Parts: sequence; C-alpha cells; structure tokens
Amino acid sequence: MAAYAYDATPLAGEASAVALPRSADQAAAVLRVCNREGVPVVPRGAGTNLSGGTIPQRGMLVMAMTRMDRIIEIDVDNLTATAQPGIVLGKFKAAIEAKGLLYPPDPSSMQVASFGGTVAESAGGLSGVKYGTTRDYVIGLEAALANGDLIRVGGKTLKNVSGYDLTHLFVGSEGTLGVITEATVRLIPLPEARRTALAVFNLLEDAAEAVSEIIRRKVVPRSLELIDSESIKHIEAYKPAGLPLDAEAVLLIEVDGRASHVDEDLALAAAACRDMRAREVRIATNAREAEALWAARRSHYPALARACPTIIIEDVCVPRHHLPRMVKMVKEASRRHGLKIGMVAHAGEGNLHPDILCDARNAEEMRRVEQFIEEIVREALSLGGTLTGEHGIGSMKAPFLAWQFGAAGVETMKRIKATLDPKGILNPDKLFSEGGMKLSRSCG
Amino acid sequence: MAAYAYDATPLAGEASAVALPRSADQAAAVLRVCNREGVPVVPRGAGTNLSGGTIPQRGMLVMAMTRMDRIIEIDVDNLTATAQPGIVLGKFKAAIEAKGLLYPPDPSSMQVASFGGTVAESAGGLSGVKYGTTRDYVIGLEAALANGDLIRVGGKTLKNVSGYDLTHLFVGSEGTLGVITEATVRLIPLPEARRTALAVFNLLEDAAEAVSEIIRRKVVPRSLELIDSESIKHIEAYKPAGLPLDAEAVLLIEVDGRASHVDEDLALAAAACRDMRAREVRIATNAREAEALWAARRSHYPALARACPTIIIEDVCVPRHHLPRMVKMVKEASRRHGLKIGMVAHAGEGNLHPDILCDARNAEEMRRVEQFIEEIVREALSLGGTLTGEHGIGSMKAPFLAWQFGAAGVETMKRIKATLDPKGILNPDKLFSEGGMKLSRSCG
Repeated sequence: MAAYAYDATPLAGEASAVALPRSADQAAAVLRVCNREGVPVVPRGAGTNLSGGTIPQRGMLVMAMTRMDRIIEIDVDNLTATAQPGIVLGKFKAAIEAKGLLYPPDPSSMQVASFGGTVAESAGGLSGVKYGTTRDYVIGLEAALANGDLIRVGGKTLKNVSGYDLTHLFVGSEGTLGVITEATVRLIPLPEARRTALAVFNLLEDAAEAVSEIIRRKVVPRSLELIDSESIKHIEAYKPAGLPLDAEAVLLIEVDGRASHVDEDLALAAAACRDMRAREVRIATNAREAEALWAARRSHYPALARACPTIIIEDVCVPRHHLPRMVKMVKEASRRHGLKIGMVAHAGEGNLHPDILCDARNAEEMRRVEQFIEEIVREALSLGGTLTGEHGIGSMKAPFLAWQFGAAGVETMKRIKATLDPKGILNPDKLFSEGGMKLSRSCG
Repeated sequence: MAAYAYDATPLAGEASAVALPRSADQAAAVLRVCNREGVPVVPRGAGTNLSGGTIPQRGMLVMAMTRMDRIIEIDVDNLTATAQPGIVLGKFKAAIEAKGLLYPPDPSSMQVASFGGTVAESAGGLSGVKYGTTRDYVIGLEAALANGDLIRVGGKTLKNVSGYDLTHLFVGSEGTLGVITEATVRLIPLPEARRTALAVFNLLEDAAEAVSEIIRRKVVPRSLELIDSESIKHIEAYKPAGLPLDAEAVLLIEVDGRASHVDEDLALAAAACRDMRAREVRIATNAREAEALWAARRSHYPALARACPTIIIEDVCVPRHHLPRMVKMVKEASRRHGLKIGMVAHAGEGNLHPDILCDARNAEEMRRVEQFIEEIVREALSLGGTLTGEHGIGSMKAPFLAWQFGAAGVETMKRIKATLDPKGILNPDKLFSEGGMKLSRSCG
C-alpha cells in the first residue's frame, strides 16, 4: 500500500486499502460498498499527475485502474478509438499510429501515464498549440458514479448535442465526480511529414516575443517549446545534446502536415525568429537530428530531478502574447525568494512550467516555494490566465480556486460535486480543500 | 409578444412577457426577480433552432438576448474572440475573417442565428467533419444563473484545467442551466485556398459509401455534403444550379488548406468517388462556380419550405460508416409511413437530415410523422448514434432522452439541472419533458 501513497509531487499520504478492479462492474461494486459505508475512494492510474491529485489519507481506499488496460476498438473508418483507463497512453498512441492515425495528446509522462488518468486530468502536452488537449478529443465515456451506477455519456459520433455534455464534465474532473471506466476519442490522419528547428536567443524575452510573432505570420506549429538557460545547463549536464550553454533561451519548433508545405512553414517560423533577434536558427536535416532535439526537451524533468533532492513542476497558463511579461515576472520572483528555477514553456499555448529546484526537507525553503507559487498564480490570473494549464488543481492549487472563479463559481462547482457524490467519498480534499496540502508540512 | 411564441419548428406557444436586456447585469436582475417570484424564463436569441427549444407557454417570460450584440474583442495575437450573445453569427464570423482568421462553426442559419443561441445549442454546420462544432471552439463564457449570480468559467487560454469544465456544461445546455451573457472562442488562421467538386451518383447508397472511402484515403474535406434526388428536384425548381435531376444523389465536396495541396486533396477525393461508382465528378474551376454549388446547397431549406405547408428538419447522427445503412432505413421508413422526404446529410460527420414535407394542419399526417421520427431515432441509437447531431433536444426529442442515456444518465442530468436551477424556472419542459410537445397537437 505504501506504493499507492504517492504521486509525482513531493507530497505523500497513506492508503488504508487498494482495489484493483478488472472490470467496470467491479469498479462500480467497490464504489457502491464504499458509498454505503462512507469510505473515501481515491481513483488513480499510474499516478504521474503533478498536482497532488491522487494522494490518499489514512482511512481511504485507493482504486487503481491499471488492470483495466484493454484497447476495445480502433475504428479506422470512423476515426475513433475506445480503450479502458488502465492502458499506458504511449502504448495506446502507438497502436493508433500503427494504423496511420494520430491521437494528439502527448504529456511528457505518456510512456508511464495511464490513458484514464490523462482523461481525468485532461492532460496536455507539447502539441497543444496546434492540436489542443485531451478535452478536445474525448467524445464519449463510461463512468462509475459514487453510488455504483454506471453511466455512458457522449458516444462515437463527431456531432452530438443530446443532453448535457457530461463527457466534458468528467474530463478533467480529477476523480472527484466518478471513476472513468472507458473512454472514446476521435482521431485524425497522421500528418505526412514533420520538420524541426532550434532557434537560439541571447535574451529570454526575445524568445518569448518570437512565439507570438510566429503565430502572427499564420504558422501554427505542432510544437513551440521554450527552454531557458538554467534548464539547458541541466539537460547538457545530463545527456549532452549540443544546446548552447551561453544562450538565455532556445525555442524548439516542430511543424507538421503535407510534405509539400512543411518546409515553407518552417522557413516562415525561422524568419520570424530571426526578425525577433534569434542569433541562430538550426534546422534539423533528418529525423535523427530532430529526434535528438526532442529527446533533449524530454530529458528536462529527469535532468533537473537529479540536480536536487526535490523538483516541483509548476504550471500556469496565460494568453500567448502575455508570455514575455509572465516569464519576466517569474524570473524576478524566483530571485526575490532566493529560489533556483529552470523554466520550460509550451510557449505556443502560453503555458509556462517554472520548475523549482529545492529540498522538501527544508521547511523554511518550502515556505518560500509556497510564497513564490502564490505570487506567480496571482500574476497569471491578473494577466487573464489560469491557475493551471494542464496539471490540474489536485491538492497543490485547491486553496487558490476561488481567486479564479469567485465565490459563486466555486459554489456552483461544489454543488455539482455534491449532486454526483452526495456523501463526498470521491477523492475528498482535492479541488476544493481551502487549506490544501502544504509543501512545508506534507512532503514525503 | 406573438413574435416570441415561435422558433423554426412548426410548434407554437405563448409568451406572457418579453425581456430584452442590454447588459449581463440586467439579465441577471431579471432572473433574480423571476426566480424569487417563480416565473419561468425562456432564454432565446434569433429563435432559429429546429428542436422547439425556445417555445414558451402561457405564464412564461421570454428573455431575448438580441440587444446585447457587441463584439468585445478579436485578439489577433492570442487567436481568440469574445462577443455578447445577441450578435448575428454571420456578422461575427465576417469581422473575424476580415482579420485573416476563421471561426469555423457554420450552421445554415448563420446569417440570422445569434452567436449566443449557437453556443447554447452547440450548433454544427457544414464544416464539422474537419473543424468540429461550436463545442470545439468555446473556451470561456459568462453566464447568469437562475438565482441571478453571474459566473465566469473557462477563459482566454488554450490550455485550462482549473476546476470543472463548466464552459462545456453550458455549451449545448439549451438555456436550461443559465443565460449565456458573453462567450470567448478560439480561432484558427483562415485557410489559404478552397476547392469544390460535385460528384454525381446513380445510386444513393453509392454516394453514402463514397463518404467513408474518401476519409479512408486520409483526406478530411472541410465539407462533405450529400443531397438526395428529392432535394435536388426542389432546389432546381427553386433556383436552378445545374444539379442533375436524374441522379439519386450528389456529394458536394470542399477541401481547404495550403494552395499547394488543395488540388492534390481534391484529386484524391474525386478518385475515391469514381471508385465508388460516381458517374461524373465536376470540379469547380473558379470561386464563382464553387459558390454557385454551395448556394444550391444552402437553398435546400427555402426550396423545400416553399413546396409544402410545413417542413420538419430532422436530425440524427451515426458513426460515419453506418451512414449507408441509416440512409437506406430512412428511405424505407418514409415509404412505409407514406411521407415525402428530402434528405441532406453532413455526410462526413454521419449527420443526416431527413426533411419531412408535410402539413401541420393534418393531425393524422402529423401522427405518421411522429411515428417516423421515433423509428429513425431508434435506428440511429441502435447503430451507436445519437438522438441529435446538431439541432438539440428541445421539445421535439425530450421524450427520447432516456432511450439514449438510460435512467441513471437522465437522472444525473436532471440532478445537475436541479442543482443550478432549484426552482426549475429556466426553460422548463425542455430536454426532460417526458411528453414533449406533440407535432399532432402543438403546431401553430
């Protein structure tokens, strides 16, 4: 049970029981008993979430969906796929790609994360700027409710306006409204070609400015990633990829589509970077060079994780053109609080991850981390942004929810929760907990 | 008030009062009073819905949002636009296109329909196969709740997983959960080029089969429309466009994207049609020819409407590859019930509109119409489809909701409704009314 007390945050709790259902009926039956007996249930997949969303407390049962891991159907004619929640996302995506189709959501954890977990968290990833996130692909699902009822919402059709859109109510509900036991996603044809470029900037602000400039020229890359100098330093120390150690930031750009026009798109993006003072734009000449650059991006988390006892992956999102201001404010705040951070951003989406290199055993430092998080969250909201772009509210951001939605908004969400889960057995203290789990008190 | 007793169905009711708010605060204030006094409120825009979704009954207040018609912002850097609900959709789309951007939803009523109405109904249109529907574009909104609270949900960011996805709960909720007072949509760059082709088929089933064959070849057209012989006959009698009167069906195909690849896509689609026994594929050689074909498609509704006293636009949706079976069943059922129908389909989405040419004053015929609708709805559900692809449940399909979602599903929706609107003042008897409004009893 110790293994189920954690997720990918430094927080830790305690599981009093673990259930591993093999079917939707088993999941529903467990819920029915827990609801009757008032036993709280924490649903989870692989536990890769970064918001403390699956941390249990003593007395709670963890329901891990990992044994329900079947692909039910990949419907090539209808461009849809249906799977159980426990399948690893990367495996599901690979099976789809083997049929010449694409399921775009691609969180960095996809080789570990469960499909169901990514639905419950509405996971994002590196291709959100062009392809959106999990929410944009889930068109139907089956869920076990707190009372043990199984419901099916949405379906397999591209158009569907029958009844309330409960599908999207469950997507991103973080296990607080029901347990997802199956989901159907729409697919798109696999793009014919992909090209990658690396743009190097002396100034971080210029890199952030270049992002909007690329979009202004009507190029929407598949991925548009920013990596700052601190992150570059750790990536190069971990697995050298030739990223420039003297640059304040790089942009990693991937375009995809028809073979006949990816070169044109990449040239337009490169020109936008040069006009925004990129000192160099390297274009990957083959798939191997491109893959090396993306491997460097993906190594960001392990690279930082080995550099310090604790790494906290923050996640805010602002309207794209406010990214330069947000980046500047984050740098300034980290200096003021004496914190070391590495920044990466899904810059095309305005989605910034200031990753904090720290030591969870140092309660004083954790209090500074908490203050820093509060400040950047307030700044993101003041710029018309959101508390969390893709990692969820979980435990970490529960105290801030009313800052974004006001009392009436939070009250509406709470009433919906109470409607579907009147005894409050599903993932309690997530989303709405005013206190949240303090990093300075709850680290494992 | 008589003018507010109708929508685009043949149903008619009676409005006892009409409110025309000029601001969100006014809308909220009216709701607060109505909630206190127990006066039912029917929110509406232009009333173009085809499901009896805005028909009031005696004692009800109609809240028409047409005076709140401002575009608040078109944010070219962020690729988003925000508007009040009363603006005509076509006007909003034109303002966006003038900036080189596209808001794809394009219901046939867009030159009349209000933006807010299309959000409340999650309107679809002709480009759903490639671009999805309203639901896929709304990322934030403001709504006045039954109790007069104003809430803001979602926002302006492309990624946003903060709290429950109330945005999508309101989209398509048909005025039963709140009154939408503002909405923000994401935009995409306007495609560089568009090309249109007309494929002519001797057999309706071959046309329906060709739809899946096009998608199977990895071409996703912007629009993929089927028009049957009865519809062709009326269109040609109304405004001749050169559609072949001896064909059982035509497919109207539009591809869009980069100028360099639209020809290739169109050639692939044309080849798929020929392989599925199209007797002819005409490719529009210029924008004028293309526009003439699309004008013919758009004239379908007026063409049918002038041919009979009453036209009822049905709307079911099935997984795309079941379209041939659905089309065959609809033809057979219309013959069996002695009904004249014209069919058009947003075929790429499996979204079929069997349009019934009838006379609402003939109660016996209306009962046959009701039986026909029940049968095609059951067939769509048995094929894994949905009660309604894009027109909503409203009054017309309320009796069938449990067929699709079961008792637990409908109960869940009703509980959510009761949570947000405890006194049931918002658009009562829509969505959940077991009896619905019978065509044989409630026509105007």
